[in-house]
Amino acid sequence: MNQEVRLCEVGPRDGLQMARGMMSAADKLRWIRQLAEAGLREIEVGSFVSPRLVPQMADTGAILPEALKVEGLTVCALACNLKGAIAAYEAGAHVLSFPVSVSDTHSRANVGKSTDAQLEALAAIVDWVRAQGRPMRIDAAVATAFGCSLEGAVPLPRVARVAAAAARAGADEIALADTVGYAHPAQVRDAVRAAQDAVGARLTKLHLHDTMGLGLANALAGLNEGIRSFDACLGGLGGCPFAPGASGNIVTEDLVFMLESMGYGTGIDLPRLLAARPLLAEALPQESLRSGVAAAGIPKTFRAAA
Amino acid sequence: MNQEVRLCEVGPRDGLQMARGMMSAADKLRWIRQLAEAGLREIEVGSFVSPRLVPQMADTGAILPEALKVEGLTVCALACNLKGAIAAYEAGAHVLSFPVSVSDTHSRANVGKSTDAQLEALAAIVDWVRAQGRPMRIDAAVATAFGCSLEGAVPLPRVARVAAAAARAGADEIALADTVGYAHPAQVRDAVRAAQDAVGARLTKLHLHDTMGLGLANALAGLNEGIRSFDACLGGLGGCPFAPGASGNIVTEDLVFMLESMGYGTGIDLPRLLAARPLLAEALPQESLRSGVAAAGIPKTFRAAA
Repeated sequence: MNQEVRLCEVGPRDGLQMARGMMSAADKLRWIRQLAEAGLREIEVGSFVSPRLVPQMADTGAILPEALKVEGLTVCALACNLKGAIAAYEAGAHVLSFPVSVSDTHSRANVGKSTDAQLEALAAIVDWVRAQGRPMRIDAAVATAFGCSLEGAVPLPRVARVAAAAARAGADEIALADTVGYAHPAQVRDAVRAAQDAVGARLTKLHLHDTMGLGLANALAGLNEGIRSFDACLGGLGGCPFAPGASGNIVTEDLVFMLESMGYGTGIDLPRLLAARPLLAEALPQESLRSGVAAAGIPKTFRAAA
Repeated sequence: MNQEVRLCEVGPRDGLQMARGMMSAADKLRWIRQLAEAGLREIEVGSFVSPRLVPQMADTGAILPEALKVEGLTVCALACNLKGAIAAYEAGAHVLSFPVSVSDTHSRANVGKSTDAQLEALAAIVDWVRAQGRPMRIDAAVATAFGCSLEGAVPLPRVARVAAAAARAGADEIALADTVGYAHPAQVRDAVRAAQDAVGARLTKLHLHDTMGLGLANALAGLNEGIRSFDACLGGLGGCPFAPGASGNIVTEDLVFMLESMGYGTGIDLPRLLAARPLLAEALPQESLRSGVAAAGIPKTFRAAA
């Protein structure tokens, strides 16, 4: 049984895109360096999307080359179309995160394309990248895999079908994303099994939100099915444009506490991770950072995984 | 597989005992009635402890007889010694909750007695109750079962030994309590198995706090080991005198959402449960109520268990 878990900090992208207030490029870089010093080896540093629609991400092109200078860091960026993917590639991203929504309505609202058209765009991106001189890992995020605020329930066979289509289009890794935070643990178990049946080990990751307070329970359900890779966000920052009042991503600090306590190594030093919070809190005074571990302190019983 | 889960709302006791501000007996009763109308069949309505140490519980003797008038409600009360247990019995409680701490240091700080002396007190209470005309269920809460803010780690064999001693003393049911909220899911699995080995089906319940944000993940771990009874608190109210900054019990609303979504029937109507929050919020304006489900709203994908 693999006892190593890979975490991708998505704070600089998913955490910031909904935040009240703007974080400067200099603060973002200081934050990314602090996260890397705490042991995070994979960080989604931004997205190549319309600066008109998501102004907080307008400086991703400036941040990415600086993030590449952080030793040992895998630098990820999100894009929603070929143009953005090319920009990510040309900026030097190691990993492209590309959303494909199971919900056709959400896909049209989020990226302006149907699910099928977005799958075609994924195939075109894979072809384009493979024709270049340098590799770039392409992760497909199967969005609204656990329900959609617009369409409601999302049938499991459709989740498996979109995952299979993303694999056929050439995605290197596939994640199931609980975009609006509707998932529950039995559903996570069932969806992971269905996606594993469809794409095997290419299903690597879960992207979970804590909307209903079930984020870590859902992570545990995924862990129990063999998932060893998770997105998370320092302070649980972020939200969902389709679920007002919703809290953000699962909290990196609490997830690290849970995993390390259970004997899963993350490579992350919990006290140093907590030390990355003050910069975030100062840069975004209107946002309240979550985390049980940060509020109560690391208990004296805590032992990191060996 | 048993698909029914029994929840005990401990808000009027564990939720209020640490709250800033006093809730009147009239408000407590209105709240208890609203909880019962939402479908809660077991409520811990207060405790028979020193009104000097816990002033918020001073009116338990007045509240309990009124709570007994709520049809179909199992009325629980906490006491820490024979005197309190007699008061609970004479007030008509259906269930006595009696804490026995695995940590000797915590036991002395919490109830003024060593663990062994508290086990002797439990035996004396069982004898006294059995000599009366009316039965009263006696639940032993094995406190600090997952760690102690005073002693640190609590060895598993000691947890099993205290559970076994509580069973020998005559407790009808036994709960494992994460008093300070240090538990993680692998520990919950191991402790439940150890206690089941020690006392069999007499281990019924988990009492969990959400201190580190792991409350529902820990509940899921217990559920996976066959636990079908949980304490919880509306709005996640409460805290821990031994863990400053700690959040309270696991949130009833979010737990019901998780269980019902997974197909476990609780008998609780989620919208009516949420309707019991405003009274609590108005009565305790200094406290902030937690709950993802309350903040984001019940998602349209939600289906209660059949």
